Amino acid sequence: MILSGKQIKDSLGKDIVIEPFNEKQINPNSYNLKLHNELLVYDEEVLDMKKPNKTKKLIIPEEGIVLEPRKLYLGRTLEYTETDKYVPMLEGRSSIGRLGVFIHVTAGFGDVGFKGYWTLEIFCVEPIRIYSGVEICQIYYHDVGGDYEKYSSGKYQNNKGIQPSLLYKDFIN
Amino acid sequence: MILSGKQIKDSLGKDIVIEPFNEKQINPNSYNLKLHNELLVYDEEVLDMKKPNKTKKLIIPEEGIVLEPRKLYLGRTLEYTETDKYVPMLEGRSSIGRLGVFIHVTAGFGDVGFKGYWTLEIFCVEPIRIYSGVEICQIYYHDVGGDYEKYSSGKYQNNKGIQPSLLYKDFIN
Amino acid sequence: MILSGKQIKDSLGKDIVIEPFNEKQINPNSYNLKLHNELLVYDEEVLDMKKPNKTKKLIIPEEGIVLEPRKLYLGRTLEYTETDKYVPMLEGRSSIGRLGVFIHVTAGFGDVGFKGYWTLEIFCVEPIRIYSGVEICQIYYHDVGGDYEKYSSGKYQNNKGIQPSLLYKDFIN
Repeated sequence: MILSGKQIKDSLGKDIVIEPFNEKQINPNSYNLKLHNELLVYDEEVLDMKKPNKTKKLIIPEEGIVLEPRKLYLGRTLEYTETDKYVPMLEGRSSIGRLGVFIHVTAGFGDVGFKGYWTLEIFCVEPIRIYSGVEICQIYYHDVGGDYEKYSSGKYQNNKGIQPSLLYKDFIN
Repeated sequence: MILSGKQIKDSLGKDIVIEPFNEKQINPNSYNLKLHNELLVYDEEVLDMKKPNKTKKLIIPEEGIVLEPRKLYLGRTLEYTETDKYVPMLEGRSSIGRLGVFIHVTAGFGDVGFKGYWTLEIFCVEPIRIYSGVEICQIYYHDVGGDYEKYSSGKYQNNKGIQPSLLYKDFIN
Repeated sequence: MILSGKQIKDSLGKDIVIEPFNEKQINPNSYNLKLHNELLVYDEEVLDMKKPNKTKKLIIPEEGIVLEPRKLYLGRTLEYTETDKYVPMLEGRSSIGRLGVFIHVTAGFGDVGFKGYWTLEIFCVEPIRIYSGVEICQIYYHDVGGDYEKYSSGKYQNNKGIQPSLLYKDFIN
């Protein structure tokens, strides 16, 4: 079962936190989230799963920034979210997808109990000028069956902003 | 809860409309949709979220058309659909994905109440010859929790064919 | 409704088979699957939906392999799975997506009744060195509504390993 927009609103302050929240961003069965003006790009010739890959920070200026196709841009949602009792999921908006802009790289699936900003994996098919503050994606919620253990991984929980991959930690222990 | 193929069939003419409909396209828990022969491509050096980007129309001929990797092709489903009471979602088929052809750009998430053809955001990893009429994707349905307001956005509701992004309208009001 | 990690564990040997299974790979509402060391790449200038496209096999060596951006790599899960009563779905992990590595090409949607290894459609935004055995994706489960007919397609059921696209068969009958 996917929560309706009305149910998302009714759950605020109980099982769901979205801050800041704006009624205009409610959809029939989801809620739109905005793009923050910070981006991270990797600074490596070849990335490596086993290493903490170097990154550089970019700020999206008022007049926007042009994204290049063969580059991954890590962004984040303006909104901070917390979710209990439901599985939060992120997907792009069709208006964004129709411009060939991916907002995640097969990684829109969340965990019940996750707290923080959502890091976005942005990739474009054709060069495109984007702007911070745009409603770039939507969050939606599934009910979860049976009892569960909340998300508590040391990697991305309670994050304060964009986080590059911490996959290399899997190879250490 | 995802509707089974049988339930999709039982809901036809009530909460679900798929036209044309063919029993052979029913799967265990989804229904296959076909590719129309029209495509739109953008006609811009650099796309811009704040502008109505120019497009050109292509027709897929009988012998098929070769898609190029660094190009976004907007297509559409042959079928017209309407959905009430459930959240409709679109995903590719594994036979299509195994050829490296994306059918949406993180935008397979629908809205309860949506009426129209589905615009497909087609992008290929390697050059590939595709054909119109192929069963290119599948529609599936989730139940929605609680009462809801049906999709009624002025952008894509009751569309008559492929629609490029109308994101620029977000920046006007 | 999405199964919690605990429910996935409780369903093992009944409606869900995951072999091999390791408790450490359970998440709040999914289970992580590992990457086998075999890859297939297509050996064609231009792929064609109507033809059985030629492929070449690669083995990921101990020191890993560098993936190139404009290439599709078909891999597979180490684990064999069977699912009844639920719809199995595959999605990447955020640690993998944050490195720009797709693990499916809009094809993460499964069928109730599917038995076999999952073929992965791997595509990277930037060049990256990957390693076999890494926890590359996660499987999660939705309940299915009403009675259903289990997946029994001749194409990918009971597979023994990576399978390239068999789409051309759709054009034969």
